[in-house]
Amino acid sequence: MSRRKQIYEGKAKILYEGPEPGTLVQYFKDDATAFNAQKKATLDGKGVLNNRISEFIMLRLMEIGIPTHFIRRLNMREQLIKKVEIVPLEVICRNVAAGTMSVRLGIEEGEKLPRSIVEFCLKRDDLGDPLVAEEHVYAFGWATQGEMDEIIAMTLRINDYLQGMFAGIGIRLVDFKIEFGRLAHPDGLGDHMIILADEISPDSCRLWDMETNKKLDKDRFRRDLGEVTEAYTEVATRLGILKPNPSTANISVISSND
Amino acid sequence: MSRRKQIYEGKAKILYEGPEPGTLVQYFKDDATAFNAQKKATLDGKGVLNNRISEFIMLRLMEIGIPTHFIRRLNMREQLIKKVEIVPLEVICRNVAAGTMSVRLGIEEGEKLPRSIVEFCLKRDDLGDPLVAEEHVYAFGWATQGEMDEIIAMTLRINDYLQGMFAGIGIRLVDFKIEFGRLAHPDGLGDHMIILADEISPDSCRLWDMETNKKLDKDRFRRDLGEVTEAYTEVATRLGILKPNPSTANISVISSND
Ligand SMILES: Nc1ncnc2c1ncn2[C@@H]1O[C@H](COP(=O)(O)OP(=O)(O)OP(=O)(O)O)[C@@H](O)[C@H]1O
Ligand SMILES: Nc1ncnc2c1ncn2[C@@H]1O[C@H](COP(=O)(O)OP(=O)(O)OP(=O)(O)O)[C@@H](O)[C@H]1O
Ligand SMILES: [Mg+2]
Ligand SMILES: [Mg+2]
Repeated sequence: MSRRKQIYEGKAKILYEGPEPGTLVQYFKDDATAFNAQKKATLDGKGVLNNRISEFIMLRLMEIGIPTHFIRRLNMREQLIKKVEIVPLEVICRNVAAGTMSVRLGIEEGEKLPRSIVEFCLKRDDLGDPLVAEEHVYAFGWATQGEMDEIIAMTLRINDYLQGMFAGIGIRLVDFKIEFGRLAHPDGLGDHMIILADEISPDSCRLWDMETNKKLDKDRFRRDLGEVTEAYTEVATRLGILKPNPSTANISVISSND
Repeated sequence: MSRRKQIYEGKAKILYEGPEPGTLVQYFKDDATAFNAQKKATLDGKGVLNNRISEFIMLRLMEIGIPTHFIRRLNMREQLIKKVEIVPLEVICRNVAAGTMSVRLGIEEGEKLPRSIVEFCLKRDDLGDPLVAEEHVYAFGWATQGEMDEIIAMTLRINDYLQGMFAGIGIRLVDFKIEFGRLAHPDGLGDHMIILADEISPDSCRLWDMETNKKLDKDRFRRDLGEVTEAYTEVATRLGILKPNPSTANISVISSND
């Protein structure tokens, strides 16, 4: 593994050159950051859980025809993915007001939105990932209108599917953040297709237990609620990825395998 | 004047009940505020200048077919307007990066934008007038798609006209903020027409001298550059509203007339 070339080290993942051209290895770290990396911690086993949860969700989405970067999981912390040119936008889909939307628009956290809302933030850590409108996207050429139409349509389908999937296990999908990338078309022609990239995990979703409203996502870390990996484990267990009632110790053991 | 009923006192203007139903009197104060009213001052003669400049611009825009709330100027500080239901958005049109856009998107102030950009901020002083996308406008029902199409089309026409008008007097229109309102259709039917409301003045535009880049707008106040009303007077003079080289003293004399 050490001879692999590291392409990028992010806040939560590392990208390595993959075994074939056009592939990457995505390594899930235990590092957690919040508030534009002002807050940092290591959460034992988080990377293992996110690798498994993201694999599970990507495979499900591919079954309904959403193209994704996911090829296969390699081990407990790594997955093989297709290398893409990331569209420099964080695509946020919201069903219930929470987080920055609550603060910016003065809507109480937990209030159901009149309809699902798709927002875009420019991926610029140095600017704090500012909210932008489609108007800015087109004016500055961050994506074309055709690409944005595809991104919005895919985001709404993903939202429909994931709302259903999580509802089935007693979890409300409050919101989630996804990223898309451009992949050269298999036919080799000039245009690029848009595929889902990055990850979908409790790091990038707000997941509330439907009965108790208990947060089962990264807000436990952001807001110092404790038991972060326990909550992620709960999500993985309800999804059927882990055996019922695994202890955190088990996760650690699994994570030390690779 | 004292028997007129005050409808609203804003930061820069007061609205009184007008002489006929469906009309208001818009009174231009000398008060200036910035940074969501954290900074305040009284600028002698500003109200008089803005009343005249806004009248001038509204009349010009009506000549090219833009419907506005302007009926007629009543005196040095007041104009009769049509009462509308204000669409709760500040509509910002930008040709050159400046102000909040420069800061948010990390674009140097003064950089020409790839094309004119129309932005929307929710009119909510308590939230600091946050930027919103059309997506939010529709989801929360602040305006309909039809209304937004009209607003955007009118804003771009206004931008074209005003860029030309100011270029003719050696001024670069960097950006401007306008507001629109709903007026019951003259035919009495259920739908409403969208008309330009509020004001267009150096309080709501960024105006830079084309030769020197000297700021001739409210940024002189925001950034403590001094000679604020002198700059507004310069704009009025170049527009032909005031006689060449009027002294600030003249303005004060005029303003004390009403
Ligand atoms: N298929 C892919 N091809 C290329 N890059 C990808 C792919 N999937 C995800 N990425 C990028 O890999 C990085 C993932 O690392 P990580 O999530 O740790 O980044 P980050 O520190 O959160 O930074 P960012 O703010 O860019 O997400 C992100 O920059 C993401 O955009
Ligand atoms: N034709 C109109 N009919 C009704 N209201 C109007 C009309 N034109 C402007 N207004 C409203 O009158 C007020 C003008 O006052 P002023 O500009 O001082 O307000 P403000 O303190 O800046 O507050 P705001 O943030 O709402 O603009 C604004 O609220 C504006 O929306
Ligand atoms: Mg990331
Ligand atoms: Mg105002």
